Amino acid sequence: MRVLGVDPGLTRCGIAVVDGGTGRSVRCVAVDVVRTPADAELANRLLAVADALEDWLDRHRPDVVAIERVFSQHNVRTAMGTAQAAGVVALAAARRGLTVAFHTPSEVKAAVTGSGRADKAQVTAMVTRLLGLTEAPRPADAADALALGICHIWRAPMRARLAEAEAKATELARRHKARLAQATSNSPKGTKQ
Amino acid sequence: MRVLGVDPGLTRCGIAVVDGGTGRSVRCVAVDVVRTPADAELANRLLAVADALEDWLDRHRPDVVAIERVFSQHNVRTAMGTAQAAGVVALAAARRGLTVAFHTPSEVKAAVTGSGRADKAQVTAMVTRLLGLTEAPRPADAADALALGICHIWRAPMRARLAEAEAKATELARRHKARLAQATSNSPKGTKQ
Repeated sequence: MRVLGVDPGLTRCGIAVVDGGTGRSVRCVAVDVVRTPADAELANRLLAVADALEDWLDRHRPDVVAIERVFSQHNVRTAMGTAQAAGVVALAAARRGLTVAFHTPSEVKAAVTGSGRADKAQVTAMVTRLLGLTEAPRPADAADALALGICHIWRAPMRARLAEAEAKATELARRHKARLAQATSNSPKGTKQ
Repeated sequence: MRVLGVDPGLTRCGIAVVDGGTGRSVRCVAVDVVRTPADAELANRLLAVADALEDWLDRHRPDVVAIERVFSQHNVRTAMGTAQAAGVVALAAARRGLTVAFHTPSEVKAAVTGSGRADKAQVTAMVTRLLGLTEAPRPADAADALALGICHIWRAPMRARLAEAEAKATELARRHKARLAQATSNSPKGTKQ
């Protein structure tokens, strides 16, 4: 499975392509950070991020686009810009019919370090180790995008099992309801079989 | 000037086209609300909003796209969805080379009611009156999109004057700096002309 991980942002947007192999093996295909000038118009900054993403989708043909889910940040203005960048990334992927998955920062940290509250240095160290890189990816946004890719690859089997279990539960509930409805519709007639 | 006003949202996205005439006259060309199902995938909801917007841009060919600037809301999850919808709207406009302008809710309210803290009923009442509509636009998102259009048309001349004044100030500062640099480079030589 090939995953394009995105740590969304306007000032710096981390983009990485990670391949999943057998077992837990993961490989870094490409990683970079897209930057847009802080003094540019918001719409043009979003366009620059979208254009860069389209280019990466063309070049690397991922199966899935995994995006960091933004909840809130100290700076509301930054959070809004980040959410907007995430929105244009999700849109580009949806236009191509790709699966789009969102992972929270703590899910990503927990996946690569074992702790949802790990700091940036720890995430970078583990990403470097897990991907067998000769040097640590910089800046932190690049490491985060790689961590997102790894997180998605490792969580994908669990997500698939969960989805399967949910589908089974829904089907069981449907059958149970149908039997109940049948029993209720029979009972007023007082017919016992 | 033809403005496409957007009150961004995933559950309900208000879209309106307003034409500015002579003086303060404004005319409603079209207004609607795009809805996407709350249980759909986020990426597909963004795609639905983007597709609807592309369709409106094709049909109405506005000069400007005016979007409500989202700062924060009580519900962080809703605020993020709203910001993402605003992002895909701004992107679609930027891709077509259209001017994109953001107005805060209080700027919009102040433009149409005279008070930045007017309630929804007041905004709807004024939008209905200013556009000479036979009935009030519903829901509130539709009225908000119309109010955005009106707000942009009325603020546009002021924005243009501000931009012109800023450009003049920058040019004056540049000339002043150049003269200063010349004076400084002359003084060590002791040449007085």
